Amino acid sequence: MNNLTEKMIMDRLIQQALEEDIGNEDVTTNAVMPEYKKGMVKLIAKQDGIICGLNVFERAFKLLDEGTTVAKFVKDGDEIKKGQRLAVVSGDIRVLLSGERVALNYLQRMSGIATYTRSVVKLLEGCKTRLLDTRKTAPNMRVFEKYAVRVGGGNNHRYNLSDGVLLKDNHIGAAGGVKKAVEMARAYAPFVRKIEVEVENLDMCREALEAGADIIMLDNMSVEDMKAAVKMIDGRAITECSGNVTLENIANIRETGVDFVSSGALTHSAPILDLSLKELHPEEDDK
Amino acid sequence: MNNLTEKMIMDRLIQQALEEDIGNEDVTTNAVMPEYKKGMVKLIAKQDGIICGLNVFERAFKLLDEGTTVAKFVKDGDEIKKGQRLAVVSGDIRVLLSGERVALNYLQRMSGIATYTRSVVKLLEGCKTRLLDTRKTAPNMRVFEKYAVRVGGGNNHRYNLSDGVLLKDNHIGAAGGVKKAVEMARAYAPFVRKIEVEVENLDMCREALEAGADIIMLDNMSVEDMKAAVKMIDGRAITECSGNVTLENIANIRETGVDFVSSGALTHSAPILDLSLKELHPEEDDK
Amino acid sequence: MNNLTEKMIMDRLIQQALEEDIGNEDVTTNAVMPEYKKGMVKLIAKQDGIICGLNVFERAFKLLDEGTTVAKFVKDGDEIKKGQRLAVVSGDIRVLLSGERVALNYLQRMSGIATYTRSVVKLLEGCKTRLLDTRKTAPNMRVFEKYAVRVGGGNNHRYNLSDGVLLKDNHIGAAGGVKKAVEMARAYAPFVRKIEVEVENLDMCREALEAGADIIMLDNMSVEDMKAAVKMIDGRAITECSGNVTLENIANIRETGVDFVSSGALTHSAPILDLSLKELHPEEDDK
Amino acid sequence: MNNLTEKMIMDRLIQQALEEDIGNEDVTTNAVMPEYKKGMVKLIAKQDGIICGLNVFERAFKLLDEGTTVAKFVKDGDEIKKGQRLAVVSGDIRVLLSGERVALNYLQRMSGIATYTRSVVKLLEGCKTRLLDTRKTAPNMRVFEKYAVRVGGGNNHRYNLSDGVLLKDNHIGAAGGVKKAVEMARAYAPFVRKIEVEVENLDMCREALEAGADIIMLDNMSVEDMKAAVKMIDGRAITECSGNVTLENIANIRETGVDFVSSGALTHSAPILDLSLKELHPEEDDK
Amino acid sequence: MNNLTEKMIMDRLIQQALEEDIGNEDVTTNAVMPEYKKGMVKLIAKQDGIICGLNVFERAFKLLDEGTTVAKFVKDGDEIKKGQRLAVVSGDIRVLLSGERVALNYLQRMSGIATYTRSVVKLLEGCKTRLLDTRKTAPNMRVFEKYAVRVGGGNNHRYNLSDGVLLKDNHIGAAGGVKKAVEMARAYAPFVRKIEVEVENLDMCREALEAGADIIMLDNMSVEDMKAAVKMIDGRAITECSGNVTLENIANIRETGVDFVSSGALTHSAPILDLSLKELHPEEDDK
Amino acid sequence: MNNLTEKMIMDRLIQQALEEDIGNEDVTTNAVMPEYKKGMVKLIAKQDGIICGLNVFERAFKLLDEGTTVAKFVKDGDEIKKGQRLAVVSGDIRVLLSGERVALNYLQRMSGIATYTRSVVKLLEGCKTRLLDTRKTAPNMRVFEKYAVRVGGGNNHRYNLSDGVLLKDNHIGAAGGVKKAVEMARAYAPFVRKIEVEVENLDMCREALEAGADIIMLDNMSVEDMKAAVKMIDGRAITECSGNVTLENIANIRETGVDFVSSGALTHSAPILDLSLKELHPEEDDK
Repeated sequence: MNNLTEKMIMDRLIQQALEEDIGNEDVTTNAVMPEYKKGMVKLIAKQDGIICGLNVFERAFKLLDEGTTVAKFVKDGDEIKKGQRLAVVSGDIRVLLSGERVALNYLQRMSGIATYTRSVVKLLEGCKTRLLDTRKTAPNMRVFEKYAVRVGGGNNHRYNLSDGVLLKDNHIGAAGGVKKAVEMARAYAPFVRKIEVEVENLDMCREALEAGADIIMLDNMSVEDMKAAVKMIDGRAITECSGNVTLENIANIRETGVDFVSSGALTHSAPILDLSLKELHPEEDDK
Repeated sequence: MNNLTEKMIMDRLIQQALEEDIGNEDVTTNAVMPEYKKGMVKLIAKQDGIICGLNVFERAFKLLDEGTTVAKFVKDGDEIKKGQRLAVVSGDIRVLLSGERVALNYLQRMSGIATYTRSVVKLLEGCKTRLLDTRKTAPNMRVFEKYAVRVGGGNNHRYNLSDGVLLKDNHIGAAGGVKKAVEMARAYAPFVRKIEVEVENLDMCREALEAGADIIMLDNMSVEDMKAAVKMIDGRAITECSGNVTLENIANIRETGVDFVSSGALTHSAPILDLSLKELHPEEDDK
Repeated sequence: MNNLTEKMIMDRLIQQALEEDIGNEDVTTNAVMPEYKKGMVKLIAKQDGIICGLNVFERAFKLLDEGTTVAKFVKDGDEIKKGQRLAVVSGDIRVLLSGERVALNYLQRMSGIATYTRSVVKLLEGCKTRLLDTRKTAPNMRVFEKYAVRVGGGNNHRYNLSDGVLLKDNHIGAAGGVKKAVEMARAYAPFVRKIEVEVENLDMCREALEAGADIIMLDNMSVEDMKAAVKMIDGRAITECSGNVTLENIANIRETGVDFVSSGALTHSAPILDLSLKELHPEEDDK
Repeated sequence: MNNLTEKMIMDRLIQQALEEDIGNEDVTTNAVMPEYKKGMVKLIAKQDGIICGLNVFERAFKLLDEGTTVAKFVKDGDEIKKGQRLAVVSGDIRVLLSGERVALNYLQRMSGIATYTRSVVKLLEGCKTRLLDTRKTAPNMRVFEKYAVRVGGGNNHRYNLSDGVLLKDNHIGAAGGVKKAVEMARAYAPFVRKIEVEVENLDMCREALEAGADIIMLDNMSVEDMKAAVKMIDGRAITECSGNVTLENIANIRETGVDFVSSGALTHSAPILDLSLKELHPEEDDK
Repeated sequence: MNNLTEKMIMDRLIQQALEEDIGNEDVTTNAVMPEYKKGMVKLIAKQDGIICGLNVFERAFKLLDEGTTVAKFVKDGDEIKKGQRLAVVSGDIRVLLSGERVALNYLQRMSGIATYTRSVVKLLEGCKTRLLDTRKTAPNMRVFEKYAVRVGGGNNHRYNLSDGVLLKDNHIGAAGGVKKAVEMARAYAPFVRKIEVEVENLDMCREALEAGADIIMLDNMSVEDMKAAVKMIDGRAITECSGNVTLENIANIRETGVDFVSSGALTHSAPILDLSLKELHPEEDDK
Repeated sequence: MNNLTEKMIMDRLIQQALEEDIGNEDVTTNAVMPEYKKGMVKLIAKQDGIICGLNVFERAFKLLDEGTTVAKFVKDGDEIKKGQRLAVVSGDIRVLLSGERVALNYLQRMSGIATYTRSVVKLLEGCKTRLLDTRKTAPNMRVFEKYAVRVGGGNNHRYNLSDGVLLKDNHIGAAGGVKKAVEMARAYAPFVRKIEVEVENLDMCREALEAGADIIMLDNMSVEDMKAAVKMIDGRAITECSGNVTLENIANIRETGVDFVSSGALTHSAPILDLSLKELHPEEDDK
C-alpha cells in the first residue's frame, strides 16, 4: 500500500471520508481547544488478528495536518495480540481527535478483512488451491478491501469490469453459446485480456475448454463434478471454483484440485477487528 | 430514503461506485452485446431478513440509463423470505449486466444492517430503552448505513462531528474538568446544539449533571452503576449507555432504565443479506 | 478560523474563487513580469472597523504559492483604525498581484459583517439577549460569513438544514398542528437535535410550550406579546425573537427578555469594510 | 441569463449552494412530510425595486426536482412594487421548503444589485458617461453579480484577469515605465485584447496616450484633471474614471465627459432587495 | 461507442472541453442572438476518409442542450467522400454556434486517427499480423483515440498501466532478470492478467519464453531476428513487434509472421480529417 | 509556462491524465519493485526540433512524488538536435516508470507544435505578417497547445469564446447585416472586448470597416482581393487572413500585407517530436 498509485487513488477517498465525518466543523473540539496543543495517542489492539491499513490510518491524520507523525511498531500483515501497542500518533491534539474516527474506521475494516482472509487461507494450506476475492466490496472501498485481501494472503480476482472478460450465463445466452461468446470476446479484445467462462456443469465446461477459454469458473458445482472438471481440463485452462464459499465450507474444496477458489465473504461479511486509540495526552512541544 | 436531500447526496456516491466498478468499460458486455436489447431480471431473496435500499438499488441502474425501470413488490423495512421475488428490473440488457454488482453491493449491505438492527431492536422490545447507531460506518457509506439503521428500527446518533457536542475524556481533560468543558461548549455553541458528556463513573456523572449536560453517556459502566446513574439523573438529562453492545449482551441493558443504548456493531459488523439477480432474459420491446 | 475543519472547507472555496478571478491567466502580470521577483505589499485600513478573515486572506495567496508569507499585526476581532497598517504580504510579486482581488474580496466582506455585527451587539450590551445570525448568507459564502458573525460577537443559529429542527408554519400545517409536528420531529430525530418551533402569537406559543419544544421562536410579534410570551415560557424553553431586526430597531428588543434575537441583515446587507493593498515594492531576495 | 453558457456555469454553483444549505438532509421537512404532496407558494415583493435572477431562482428548485414549475409574472429588469406577486412555484411541497432559502438568497442579492445599479444609472442619464462594475464581487458569485449589473443598466468591465490587460502602477513599475509596459503587453498579447492603463495624473495620461493605450483609466483624479485628461485624449482612447464612486458622489462625474465610470459599490455594498415566499399551500395534484 | 460505459467516461470529458472552449459565455452569440431561434446546420466532408466519433459529436451539442437533434447519414467506420453530407444538426441556433468547435475538434481528430489506422491496416491485409495501438495518446483523449483505432480496424493494446503486465528492460533489471521478473509478476497478479515481456534479442526472447511469458514483444529487432524469434516461440506465446512502425515501413513486418504489430503513430501523429459545419440557417419551429 | 496561473490550470489536467494512464495501479512496477529505490533516467532527443513543455514534463513526475527532481539542460524554445541529452530525471524509480508515458505524451506533443510553428514562422520572416493559432486544439489540451504556439514564435488568437467577439456569417445573418451585428456586439460588450468581423469579399470588408470593426478577418479570399482589402482598410482595423493555411501555401500570404495570418494546422495536425527516456539506472541515495 506504500506505492504511488494506491496513494493516488486513496487520498481522494480518504479526504472525502474526512469531509463526511467532520461536516462543517468538529464543534466539540473547536469549543474546548481553541489553540494548538501538541499531544500523542496510542493505537492499541483490542483483539488478536492481522493488522492492515496502517498507511491509510496515517494518511487520515496527515490529510488533516501534514505535521502529524505516526510511529508504527508493526507492519501490514503482522499478527497482533490483544493489548499490543501498535503505533503512536503525535501532533496537534485537535487533529488527533478530529481524525480518530475515520482513521479507525478504515483500519478496523481493513484489518477485519485481512484477519478473515488469513483464517481462510490457513484452511487451504498444503493444497494447491489459492484464494481469490470478488467484486462484492463495499462501494467506494474497493482499493482498500482488495489490498486487505492481499495482505491477508489472498489474491485478487478482477479489479473491475474493464480488467478482464468474464462470460456468465447471460453473456453466453446473448452471444448464442459458449463457443460464439468466446469468439466474440477474442475478436473484441484479442490481445491483453484473458477470457474467463463461467460454467455450471461438465458439458459447458467441455465447451468452454474447446472454445479456448483461458480461465474456467466452476460455479456452484458439486465436489465430484469439480474433480471431474479439473481432470478434463488437465491444465489447459486455469480453474476457479466459486459459489458461497465461507470459512465453514471451504475445506471441501481442498480435494478438488482447482487452481483458485473465490469468496465474496472475504469482503462483504468479515467483521471488523477491534482497535482503539487510547491514552491521549499532551506532550512537550519541541517546536 | 425517497426524499430529495438523501438523493442529492446519494447520487454522487453511487455514480462514483459505478465508476469504480466499471472502469473504462464493461469489456465482457461490450464484446458480446454490441446492440441494445431489451430485457428483464428478477431480484430474489436468498435469505430471510429485512429489505433496505431499494431506491439506491434503482438509482444504480438509472444513473447508467434513465430508461431502466424497477418494479418493486416490497418496500424498505419489509420482512422478506428466502426465495421471495422482490423486484423486477427492465431495460437495456447491457445496463442490467453492467449495473448489477454495484446495485447489489449497496442493497445487500444496507439490508444486512437493517436486518441486524431489527434483531437488536427486538431484544429491547417492552422496555423504554431505544437503540442508537454510532459513527463507526464504512467510509463514504454513512448516509446509506444510517438510513438502514432507521429502517431496521434504530435511531441515529450524531451524523457527523458538526452535528452535536460530545465531550469525551480528552475534551474534558483539555478543558480542565467536566464543568469547565460544558461551559466552554455552551459559550461556543449556545443555541441549537445539545451538549452530551461521556462519563465513566458516578462521580463524573454527578458533575456532568450539575454542569447542565443535555445528554449523559454512561460509558462502559456496570449494570449496577448504570442503574444508580439513571436514578441520580432522574430525567434531568437524557441518558445513553455505550460500550461494546452486541446482540449477545444487550439484554443486560433492559433493566438499567437508560433512555438509549448505542452500538457500533450495527454498522461495522453486520453481515450482508444475501440477494441475487436471477433469470435475466430478453423481452419484447414495445418501443 | 485557525482550525483544521474550517480550513478543510475554506480551501476548496478559495481555490474556486481564485479560478473564477484568474481564468486562464493573469494576462497583464504575465506580460510585464515574465520572471520571479520578490516583493512585499502592505494591507492598510481605509475605514475604522473590526478586522475579520486574516487567515482567509492569507490562504488566497498561499494557495497560489505556498512560499508567500503574511506578517499580521492584528488578529481577527481587533478594532482597527483608518490608515492602520494591518499586515505585510511578501513573496513573488506576480502572486501578490494575481491574488490581491480574491484576498481582499473575502477580507473586506468578512470584516464588513464583523463590523456590522459588533455594532448591533453593542446595542444589546447590558441586557440578557444575545444576537444570532440566520441562513440568509451569500451562496457559497456561509462558512466565512457565519465565522465573521462570531468574530463580531454574535452567535450562530443553524448552520444548515440538517443542523436542527425548526418547525415553521408550513411544517406545522403539513403535520396538522404544533403538537403533532413536535411529536413527529421527536420521533424522527429523538436524540441529538433540539426542536425549535416558530410561533406567531401567544396561543401558538402556549401550544409549542406544551408540546415540549426546546426553543420557541417569536416571529414578528409585538414587544408586548413578546414580553407576555417570555413570561409564559418562564425558562422552560429557550426563546428567540425574529423578524426584520436591524441596527435601527433592535433596541426595542432589550426590554422583552428574550434569550436570543436573530437578524438576517448581519450577513445579507452589511456593507464591506474598505481595505487596501498599498505600496507594493520589490525587495532583496535572501534566497 | 437565459442562455446556455451562463446556465453551464450557474448550475454547478447553485448545486453547490444547495448542498451548503441542506447538508445531509432537511431534517425538519423529512420529519413532518414523509410523502410527496403537491403544493404551491407565491413569491412576493416586500420592497420596491428591480427584480433580477428569476432563472437562478427557478434553477434552485429544478435542480432539486426537475418537476417543479415556476410561473413568472415579471421578467428580469422589471420594476416591482412592494406587495406585488412576482411568481408562483408549484411542485412537491418538500422541494418548495428545502429549496426556498437558496432560491431567495440568490434572488434577493441579485435584485439588490440590479436595484442599486439602476439608481446609479439614473444619476447618469442625459450624459454620455456609462456605468461599469468591477471585480469586487462576492467570491463564487461573479457570474450572477455581473449579470445583475447588466440587468440594472450597467455595463461589465473585465470578467476576470484573463479578459483584458489592465496595467496598474505596480505593473508599470515592474516594466520600467508606461511606454515599456504597453509595449510588453502588446508583444505578449498582440491580437484580441485591449490594453488599459491606469493613470493618476496628466503626465501619466499623456504617456499612456502616446504609448497607444486602448483605454485610459483616470484613477482618483480631481474633476478638473479628469476634464483636462478627456480633452487631451480627445477620442484617441476610451476613458474610464474610477475611485470610490458611489450613489452619493457620482453626479460630479457628469461634467467630466469620461466615457465610463466604474464603481465597486454596485456589487460589494448593495443591500439586498427584500422578497418573500408566502402562502404555501397544498393543491390538487393532477398527476 | 454507443454503449453506456464509454458514455459514462466521455460525457465528463466532453463537458470539460465545452467549458474550456466557452469560458464564461459565448459573447458573440449572446450579443447578437438574445432569443431562442430554431435552426439547422449540415456536417460536410472536406476530405475523403473514415468517419469516426459521430456520437461524441452529438453529445457535445446535447450536453449544451438536450433538445438538439443530430440526424446521421453515415455511421462510424464508413468511408466518406469529399463533399458528402454526413449529418444535419437541428436545434437552438445559439447551441449550434456555441458547440460547433468542440464537436468538430473531437470528430476531426477521431476521424483522422480512424483514417490513418485504416490505411495501415490495408497494408497488412492478407497476412496474419494484426495492428495494435499504444498508450501514446493525447492526454485526456485516450478513450476517444483508442475507440478510433478500433473503428479504423486496429486493435487495442493495454488501456492503461493497470490493464496488464508489461515487463520492460527497467523492470527486468530491477527484478534481476527475465525469469525472476516473470515470477514476481505472476506472484503479484497470478490470476486475471497476462504477462508480456519486452525483448531486444533472441537470447532474451528464449528466456522470456522459458519463463512462461504470455506475450513476447520483439522491440526494435531486425526482420531476420523477428522471423527467428517467431519460429522459436512457435505459438507458445503471442508475439508483438514494436518500434517506430509507420505507414512507410510497415510492409516489412508482413513476412515476419508476428501476431501483432504496434504503432504509436496511429494516435500521436495522424493528421485530422477535414470536416465542416456549413449552411447554418433558421428553420420553422414546430414547437 | 512557469507562471502561477498556467500552473493552476495545468496541474488539474496533468493529474487527470496521470489517473487516465495509471488506472488503479501500475501493476508491472508494483509487482517487481515493492520498495523505494532511487534512480535516474535521461531525456534524449530522437529528432531535431524545438523543445517545449519542460515544466509540464516535470509536473507529471512531481504530482506523483514531490521528491522527484528534473535537471534541465535546455529551456522551452531552444533548438535541439537528435541525440542531445535534454534533462535528467531523478527520484524513486517507480515514479520514473509510472510517470514516463504521461510526461512524454505532453512533451512530445507540445514540442511537435512548437517545431511546426517555428517552421511556419520562418516562412514569414522579413514580412510584417505575424502568425496566429486557432481554437482547433485537442480537447482539454488548449492551455498546453496555445503555449506551444507562443514558444514556437506564433501568437494566440482568442483563448475561448468569452475572450473576444468574432462575428461570422451566421452571427451577421442572425443580426441582419454587418452594421447591425457590430452595433449589437458593441451594445452588449462596449468596453473591454475587441470586435472582429469575418468577411468573404470586398463589399463585406467595406461594410465591416464602416461599422467600426476592430479586426477584420479576410476568410478564404484570393491574394488579389486580400491586397485590395488591406489597401482599403489602410490601418483603420487590424487585418487577419484565414483559411486552410499550411506550411505549403503560406508564402503566398507574404505579399498581401495582412497583419496576421491564422492556421489551424499548427495545433490540429502537427506531428509529435520524438523524444525518449533512456538509460534508467539506480543510483546511490544520499538520503
